[in-house]
Amino acid sequence: MHIGVLGATGPAGSGLAARLAASGHEVIIGSRSHERAVEVRDELVGRWPDHALVIEAGDNQAAAGAEVVVIATPWDGASTTAASLVEQLDGKVVICMANALTRMGKEFQPLVPPRGSVAGNVQAALPGSRVAAAMHHIPAKELGDLSHPVESDVLVCSDHASATDVTSELIDSMPDMRALDAGSLALAAPIEAFTAVLLQLNVRYKTRAAVKFTGITR
Amino acid sequence: MHIGVLGATGPAGSGLAARLAASGHEVIIGSRSHERAVEVRDELVGRWPDHALVIEAGDNQAAAGAEVVVIATPWDGASTTAASLVEQLDGKVVICMANALTRMGKEFQPLVPPRGSVAGNVQAALPGSRVAAAMHHIPAKELGDLSHPVESDVLVCSDHASATDVTSELIDSMPDMRALDAGSLALAAPIEAFTAVLLQLNVRYKTRAAVKFTGITR
Repeated sequence: MHIGVLGATGPAGSGLAARLAASGHEVIIGSRSHERAVEVRDELVGRWPDHALVIEAGDNQAAAGAEVVVIATPWDGASTTAASLVEQLDGKVVICMANALTRMGKEFQPLVPPRGSVAGNVQAALPGSRVAAAMHHIPAKELGDLSHPVESDVLVCSDHASATDVTSELIDSMPDMRALDAGSLALAAPIEAFTAVLLQLNVRYKTRAAVKFTGITR
Repeated sequence: MHIGVLGATGPAGSGLAARLAASGHEVIIGSRSHERAVEVRDELVGRWPDHALVIEAGDNQAAAGAEVVVIATPWDGASTTAASLVEQLDGKVVICMANALTRMGKEFQPLVPPRGSVAGNVQAALPGSRVAAAMHHIPAKELGDLSHPVESDVLVCSDHASATDVTSELIDSMPDMRALDAGSLALAAPIEAFTAVLLQLNVRYKTRAAVKFTGITR
């Protein structure tokens, strides 16, 4: 698949870009700054010479031209970035991986965006696109560390069955990840918020935790 | 430990009562109706003769007299039940396992109670108690099926370290369960809401899913 990643210069976006490219996809990374995208692309390609990553550096505009587009910007920029690319994203599957979180002292806590979830706001900004929410619970550093696979179940939700399908296919193409259909975009609210719990566990147990569900045979 | 379970005639409460009794605790089950508590106690003891369960049947008033008290009522009755027992519960560890959920068509969706979580409302109703939120994600039927252990990580959060400790000890006493400290009671909101995702997965994959976190050595 040809995948664009908006906001790919942050840890989650660059980690995902590397992991997707290592799994055989053509990736174009976008950023508000083209130079910054070039820097990050060069870092990723230089860090993993054995993987011969195919990553193109663009700006968000260019990345939004891909077949499937991931929004990996900070959560408070997700829907404005989406809105600025409404024409390029029309008709496409758009995957939102942002979480609205804040740090209160030593603790991560979830924030509730106006429509309940970041993905809900993105879908509202992109009425002609098919938005899926996914990949919230995978530690960004683990995503970007190509020396080993990331063993994780990955929850996907969307109001469009075809978006759930495409997103799940993408997830399943990454070794040891398993996509699970978690229902409509209404479920993006608890899925996004739960990321605060994961971060909390990481702080408390000095680790990078991921989620697995027992009892599910897919 | 001597544990009281309020609202123990529902599936979650009766399942937990059976599991706790099978793990060697003395359990007193409460209900608004003493007769109903007796019925449920007799059902549990009759169903698992080999476990020789020590379960006493009381009403909520009697169950609130125990050393540690679990609130397993329906979510919309949790804080009013708690408020009616404020004196009995004063100074105690109170474990809230309720989730505010609704079913929209075929889908479970979380509701947001006024203080963000049911446990937050219960703590507000019980200013002299130490409230912990825990045991939201274990399928009720699995809890109550004593023919096999429930392999699950169990998230615990509280504003009182001693409540997290006591609750964790209780959880760790049940075979194959592992308590994890998920921070302050602010985290009850995403933990409770995430139950909707678990139920959604159960519907979608016709299973009873539980959660495990990879990468955590406790």
